[in-house]
Amino acid sequence: MAFKNLLRGAAVAAFLASKVEAVDNGLAITPQMGWDNWNSFGCDVSETLLLQTAQLIVDYGLKDLGYHYVILDDCWSIGRNASHNNSLIANPEKFPNGMAAVADQLHALGLGFGMYSDAGKYTCGGYAGSLGYETVDANTFAEWGVDYLKYDNCFNMGQAGNQMISSARYEVMANALNATGRPILYSLCNWGEDYPWNWGSTIANSWRISGDVYDSWDQPDSRCPCDGPDAWNCGLPGFHCSVTNIMNKASFIVSKAQPGAWNDLDMLEVGNGAMTDAEYVAHFSMWAAAKSPLILGNDIRVVPAKDLAILSNAAVIAVNQDPSGSSAARRWMYSTDSTDAYGGSALQLWSGSLKSTTGGQYNDMVVLLINGANETMVMNATLADIFVDSGAAGTARQVKISWEARDLWANRMSEAEAQAIIDASSATGNATNGYNATMVGSGRYNATKTSYAQGLKNNDTLLLGNVTTTVGPSGTVTATVERHGAALFRLRALPTGVKKRDEL
Amino acid sequence: MAFKNLLRGAAVAAFLASKVEAVDNGLAITPQMGWDNWNSFGCDVSETLLLQTAQLIVDYGLKDLGYHYVILDDCWSIGRNASHNNSLIANPEKFPNGMAAVADQLHALGLGFGMYSDAGKYTCGGYAGSLGYETVDANTFAEWGVDYLKYDNCFNMGQAGNQMISSARYEVMANALNATGRPILYSLCNWGEDYPWNWGSTIANSWRISGDVYDSWDQPDSRCPCDGPDAWNCGLPGFHCSVTNIMNKASFIVSKAQPGAWNDLDMLEVGNGAMTDAEYVAHFSMWAAAKSPLILGNDIRVVPAKDLAILSNAAVIAVNQDPSGSSAARRWMYSTDSTDAYGGSALQLWSGSLKSTTGGQYNDMVVLLINGANETMVMNATLADIFVDSGAAGTARQVKISWEARDLWANRMSEAEAQAIIDASSATGNATNGYNATMVGSGRYNATKTSYAQGLKNNDTLLLGNVTTTVGPSGTVTATVERHGAALFRLRALPTGVKKRDEL
Amino acid sequence: MAFKNLLRGAAVAAFLASKVEAVDNGLAITPQMGWDNWNSFGCDVSETLLLQTAQLIVDYGLKDLGYHYVILDDCWSIGRNASHNNSLIANPEKFPNGMAAVADQLHALGLGFGMYSDAGKYTCGGYAGSLGYETVDANTFAEWGVDYLKYDNCFNMGQAGNQMISSARYEVMANALNATGRPILYSLCNWGEDYPWNWGSTIANSWRISGDVYDSWDQPDSRCPCDGPDAWNCGLPGFHCSVTNIMNKASFIVSKAQPGAWNDLDMLEVGNGAMTDAEYVAHFSMWAAAKSPLILGNDIRVVPAKDLAILSNAAVIAVNQDPSGSSAARRWMYSTDSTDAYGGSALQLWSGSLKSTTGGQYNDMVVLLINGANETMVMNATLADIFVDSGAAGTARQVKISWEARDLWANRMSEAEAQAIIDASSATGNATNGYNATMVGSGRYNATKTSYAQGLKNNDTLLLGNVTTTVGPSGTVTATVERHGAALFRLRALPTGVKKRDEL
Amino acid sequence: MAFKNLLRGAAVAAFLASKVEAVDNGLAITPQMGWDNWNSFGCDVSETLLLQTAQLIVDYGLKDLGYHYVILDDCWSIGRNASHNNSLIANPEKFPNGMAAVADQLHALGLGFGMYSDAGKYTCGGYAGSLGYETVDANTFAEWGVDYLKYDNCFNMGQAGNQMISSARYEVMANALNATGRPILYSLCNWGEDYPWNWGSTIANSWRISGDVYDSWDQPDSRCPCDGPDAWNCGLPGFHCSVTNIMNKASFIVSKAQPGAWNDLDMLEVGNGAMTDAEYVAHFSMWAAAKSPLILGNDIRVVPAKDLAILSNAAVIAVNQDPSGSSAARRWMYSTDSTDAYGGSALQLWSGSLKSTTGGQYNDMVVLLINGANETMVMNATLADIFVDSGAAGTARQVKISWEARDLWANRMSEAEAQAIIDASSATGNATNGYNATMVGSGRYNATKTSYAQGLKNNDTLLLGNVTTTVGPSGTVTATVERHGAALFRLRALPTGVKKRDEL
Repeated sequence: MAFKNLLRGAAVAAFLASKVEAVDNGLAITPQMGWDNWNSFGCDVSETLLLQTAQLIVDYGLKDLGYHYVILDDCWSIGRNASHNNSLIANPEKFPNGMAAVADQLHALGLGFGMYSDAGKYTCGGYAGSLGYETVDANTFAEWGVDYLKYDNCFNMGQAGNQMISSARYEVMANALNATGRPILYSLCNWGEDYPWNWGSTIANSWRISGDVYDSWDQPDSRCPCDGPDAWNCGLPGFHCSVTNIMNKASFIVSKAQPGAWNDLDMLEVGNGAMTDAEYVAHFSMWAAAKSPLILGNDIRVVPAKDLAILSNAAVIAVNQDPSGSSAARRWMYSTDSTDAYGGSALQLWSGSLKSTTGGQYNDMVVLLINGANETMVMNATLADIFVDSGAAGTARQVKISWEARDLWANRMSEAEAQAIIDASSATGNATNGYNATMVGSGRYNATKTSYAQGLKNNDTLLLGNVTTTVGPSGTVTATVERHGAALFRLRALPTGVKKRDEL
Repeated sequence: MAFKNLLRGAAVAAFLASKVEAVDNGLAITPQMGWDNWNSFGCDVSETLLLQTAQLIVDYGLKDLGYHYVILDDCWSIGRNASHNNSLIANPEKFPNGMAAVADQLHALGLGFGMYSDAGKYTCGGYAGSLGYETVDANTFAEWGVDYLKYDNCFNMGQAGNQMISSARYEVMANALNATGRPILYSLCNWGEDYPWNWGSTIANSWRISGDVYDSWDQPDSRCPCDGPDAWNCGLPGFHCSVTNIMNKASFIVSKAQPGAWNDLDMLEVGNGAMTDAEYVAHFSMWAAAKSPLILGNDIRVVPAKDLAILSNAAVIAVNQDPSGSSAARRWMYSTDSTDAYGGSALQLWSGSLKSTTGGQYNDMVVLLINGANETMVMNATLADIFVDSGAAGTARQVKISWEARDLWANRMSEAEAQAIIDASSATGNATNGYNATMVGSGRYNATKTSYAQGLKNNDTLLLGNVTTTVGPSGTVTATVERHGAALFRLRALPTGVKKRDEL
Repeated sequence: MAFKNLLRGAAVAAFLASKVEAVDNGLAITPQMGWDNWNSFGCDVSETLLLQTAQLIVDYGLKDLGYHYVILDDCWSIGRNASHNNSLIANPEKFPNGMAAVADQLHALGLGFGMYSDAGKYTCGGYAGSLGYETVDANTFAEWGVDYLKYDNCFNMGQAGNQMISSARYEVMANALNATGRPILYSLCNWGEDYPWNWGSTIANSWRISGDVYDSWDQPDSRCPCDGPDAWNCGLPGFHCSVTNIMNKASFIVSKAQPGAWNDLDMLEVGNGAMTDAEYVAHFSMWAAAKSPLILGNDIRVVPAKDLAILSNAAVIAVNQDPSGSSAARRWMYSTDSTDAYGGSALQLWSGSLKSTTGGQYNDMVVLLINGANETMVMNATLADIFVDSGAAGTARQVKISWEARDLWANRMSEAEAQAIIDASSATGNATNGYNATMVGSGRYNATKTSYAQGLKNNDTLLLGNVTTTVGPSGTVTATVERHGAALFRLRALPTGVKKRDEL
Repeated sequence: MAFKNLLRGAAVAAFLASKVEAVDNGLAITPQMGWDNWNSFGCDVSETLLLQTAQLIVDYGLKDLGYHYVILDDCWSIGRNASHNNSLIANPEKFPNGMAAVADQLHALGLGFGMYSDAGKYTCGGYAGSLGYETVDANTFAEWGVDYLKYDNCFNMGQAGNQMISSARYEVMANALNATGRPILYSLCNWGEDYPWNWGSTIANSWRISGDVYDSWDQPDSRCPCDGPDAWNCGLPGFHCSVTNIMNKASFIVSKAQPGAWNDLDMLEVGNGAMTDAEYVAHFSMWAAAKSPLILGNDIRVVPAKDLAILSNAAVIAVNQDPSGSSAARRWMYSTDSTDAYGGSALQLWSGSLKSTTGGQYNDMVVLLINGANETMVMNATLADIFVDSGAAGTARQVKISWEARDLWANRMSEAEAQAIIDASSATGNATNGYNATMVGSGRYNATKTSYAQGLKNNDTLLLGNVTTTVGPSGTVTATVERHGAALFRLRALPTGVKKRDEL
């Protein structure tokens, strides 16, 4: 049987209760959230950058939305210390106070510290890799107070080519991290080579499924050659993969996502400037629904207000952080005649089950309509398609009842409000000590205070979007979706009794 | 040479006489039959479910049609007993009397007990897997009186990627089962990864060839990505594979089926409600002709009468259980202009040789016409195509004689008759001690009393369908086939003398 | 660099002189020729069959045309002798005098004895395989006087999946055969799995490149799924592969053929009755030009005269047995609008270099035009395409001179003459002691007396076909080719002086 | 992350400063240049050929353009010396003074000596291979004074099939070469099998990415079967790959090129006569921009003047030898209706970053427009596409400024000038001691005197082509490109101030 098959109805609870998370470190029960410097800064890293950014993550309320890990990517070391167990040495110019000091300050802000290394001879940037040094490096990271390891795949000395070879290489570091005794979230970055979705879950908390994302909706690039219906079989992950390309790759393996072990669609490009607002909304919606880790990839210091508004949408994040831990799946994809400059034209429906917020017998559902065509489209999703996992051909009981469809983007923060938050922050010298409660106040969700799981249980309206319509039995969810945009709904079952009355 | 090539004419007898069944446990000389709870119940298993179902299998005459194994699927354990060889512990709430008690009661009903485990760290449901515990688990199963093991593929720790790696992993359990001394049918469930049709036959009795089936004729699903002419090469078997998808995968590897070792097309969906009657008829016909194990996947307690009638068709089952042990093969597939909602439109001809029921020199033949178009079609199969394995381009001697075409669905039990059987069963409190001989009486085949092999030798009319037409030399079998339906015939050679007279 | 690249001009001689044949047993310096019982008899083997056939091979002059090996295929054993080193036991009913006696009688006729086994647990027919018994079996074969081993691939216990695994398995038998001290031609039959063209040449004399051929020009079969431009990458070779399918597979790897090590396109179907005469002519031409072993696959006892005439064409065989040992290559393939029942319509040009028979500076060339369209076609091959390997874009010096084009099918024996040979043979009781010199007399080539190499050096007209036309510089070879037929020419350079005079 | 991603802006300098070249021998910091005899001479090698050619390389000024290595390809040995460590023996007829003497004379001319062997049992030409003899052969090469090893892949005994197997085989020789203490450039020639771009950089200086090139723009050949969007996944590299085929393969893996480790597109065909002048110009431009090693493959003794002019274009070579060591990448490829005889019709844009020659903040850029259509085309490249790596969707800052576009072919030496060089050389007996300064004089670049890196820093006009146009912000580079030809530009940023004035 396939794993996800059993996550139906009551089985979900049983599964979670069995407490056999794929990897045993107890982390990433929901997809990890945070920020990584790579997409915006590449090798240009420093203590200053990390701490400035961390402060803004606090100031802008991002921390309280769940963005927890501040992840330092490649190019931080200057080699190994032969006289000290060959342990890695942080670059003293970039990190004059050492890494432990960085960790301490991040911890003081209530954030986690993410570190980077590579399961090869060199990192992708040409610095010392951890292959053959797993134990010493894991120990070093633990000593420094590291909470997270992104583990890359460059220069792997030919130790790839089938699942056994790649998994063995990555398992060495898993064991080394576990042996430290410190819980360190383990994030595989082997770009989907050798099917990490099959073996990643028993050794790690997430695994990349593609080459590096870039800030483009669907521009193809020869350097990211795998696309279309066979894209799951990618011996050359490459990089410069568009958002659409990666979403396609995710569509085949959504069932591999599970509490403690996630498909990683790569860092977010929201805020980096090369996509339209509609595209960023769709990008964020897709990553959320597919249960990807949500790792900010922009320069927080210059985040545009409208992008901060996207990244701050708690109702969308709540889909990502839903306790049921089950990814949405693609139900259909159709080409249209409305092609854009790169030939893209597809319409897609994704849906997936969420924890019930009604207290009734039926789970909530997330419904994601993606418009890849070159113009605004009116899109339709039947309950039969939305609930196909609960019964093919419209036979699911859920198809026979009524649902309220709640638009999860309805309550997106206004650009003015977002700008006010930015203006009040330490970036402008206005903030004093982090999160400015006055500015961001009661209208924003605070996951530090109340977990998403609890908030959903509480029916917190900040997490539930706005009702836009009621969909009757065997009905259709309809939305007008912008070019390269998305509509994202939460369906909540209407009490059957109510429905019956409605029908009178 | 290819294995199946030699199964021509007299060679079949020689092969069977050589008694070198692929796996040496002497089981599954014809494809196994039974019931498995997964498709209908998932993790919701219990002693009660198994025994209730078992009783109905007896009551409805299904046992006497050959459905022998009652297979408990995933989610039955609560872990290992560290103080008792790390042996698996059955969930005491679901199985309060222990597994041996379940086995005893099934055995008392004349049924076999099927068990489930996984060649990985965890089962697909997240319970303890058998990887590394093969010997202790095989011994436990043998002690409990288990007759059958379905062995899954989740969380396999990267031990996959080529035939050698996967086969080695599955061979450990084969050896452990053999070492118990108890004959236990060994059913591989690695979804066709790493070509189990090449190595499964020397270690097991059957092997799955695809991701999990779902209750749909041909709705595509991104999570079952392999389709079309390259579908045999599937590194991501996935799940939610339609009946049509799986039949396509089977078409490439039919020659790998042989006595003792079968291509497993996955459990039946008949009775689960999402396909039309014509589709279920076609589904059952296809599985039978391809010599798949016939494992019921529906909730027997609520089986619709018309579905019971499908599952009870002895003339079709006799094709599956034919002593020659050779799968039908696809002879052609054509697209038509009549496409359904998912683009399906193909017409297919399958045929294969069956043991002679005429006592003459020629084998019987099974002829299966499948209509995947969106409307009723008149379909034609020439003797030249039907007998292509006996001589390309119509050169087979069989093409030159006359055949009677017997419709194997002609004598399908009426819905009323099936309902009467249901009404008389223990499900309604009417039955006293199992199989109600009065109700299902003389019109039904009883394989407990007379094996299919013997019944065919006896020319039992219950196994032979109804003559619909006589096909002359170089003639054509014609059938009007419903949308998404199938026609299934048994061809029997007319005595040559008779033919000659006919020609006068 | 690619191997074949260097076989240009004088390099060929140098290569051959270096005497580094790929496998070191000194056999198959040109492709082996012989007869194998499988295609016609399957498991129905016996001493009688082999010896009857052997006598006819002599009587019909086939032996003197080079058909040397009489190969017993599967189903000859009844298992191993536990009290005698576990050596294989010949079936005493089929071989009442033992295998050594068969060998002796074949040797007495001047023929070689070919034997069959399998690199797996069982043979494809379910008999004892040699995996794990390589040494004892090689010794047994050597003791019996075996000259040839066809080594199959069924039931290989998962020992496949990449080149290293498969080659290691086949190398064990290579070493065992070499260790016997008896030169035994080693013929790999792993159907092209794991690219045997890469590793076969260092351990064996030939390797199959596809699933089993069947007696059809181009009827597709699901069980032989690899076709088209990616057919070289075939993880499921299957069987029932048409002549066209196999020729396509050969087109990618022609450069791998070399003295001592050949691409094996499988046994011939000529004479088995399901193809047209034109198709058999094309089939034989293709196998010859591609330097496949030429192994008869028909029932010699009932060979139709017209098929004997095909198989006896020394001018075509001389192409196959050419001392330069270089396969023809496909120069182009075009689809046409004239499609047959299976969609076939392609026209192809193949050409390749042969040893010069003019004594001049230029090699002869073989030119093969294949008409896969559904009607007779006039086909053209430019010298620029024919000589592309000697210089792209028509730059080869050979394109600038004139050539005589000799039709190698022009002197095909008449059906009457072939029938006379059959009538005079031991099959009719007319022959006394083998080859009937009177009947087949002076008009036939005798390779026993004069090797093809010597015959070509002698300019033996029996090997050179008939001049049909002279092709001027940068000219075109034109032929009218039947539906599903072929034209086969030998080009011989005209003396440049002569050409110049012609131009006057 | 992907390696090349980080080579942006200032990161390049940081990377180079870290001195972690992929392979540690310090060689090929820019792509190697030289000459190899294979394409023109095959096995017909000798001391005379090498030394004659070497002298002409000097005479024609090619040495001073950077063509440094004279590489002896296959067929130079006669086997191993059993009484001398099994070391390889040079053919005494071809190399009567031994190999060390060849090396000495090449060194005396200021050239490097390249040698050939094979990671298999035999070389492709059937001579003794180095598999199993790596240490003795490396030592022999070092003793002889060898500076370069081309290491081939024939007859590799099945040691292939995944990255681990292939890389392990090639690493043995890497270690043996390193152990000699002599810096020997290590050039892998395994034709792209098993993804050498992933593992080659840690053990070698370059790796072939395809089967052997041949002298054709785009004629397809069955023996080079991998083409199109999946061509990166090539289990059968074959040979007779056209220039277009190889460029396509390069397009997927350009990011793998880096200082010390290069994608090798195979030797040049310029001068071999089967392509048009436009095609050779395009071929040379493509190899240069893709940072392939530039290894001459023609017979220098008869080089046509117009081809010498191509090979001598320092402005193009300077692109190849640019210190930033980053390959151009394909930005787009479009089919057109103008198809040639082989169906080719594609237009392509490639671009990549070069070291700044302006001293400003922006790197120079190389822009390559390739016209595969069958007629002259006007082609356009927008700054947005050219700079997509610096910011998708035209967001790069570079798109907002003005650039001068310098045509790198504008100053191609005239045919007359090239002929004069030839006429003055030792080939005609006119030259006395190598490079004829008078003839080739001041108009030619001398890299022996001034490295390309220094020349670029110096703004040497010989390296910078001619300004053809100024491209304004968000503008377009336009060129009229011949059929099967290319335009090659260097973009140099105009000072922003200047631009602003221009806009006034």
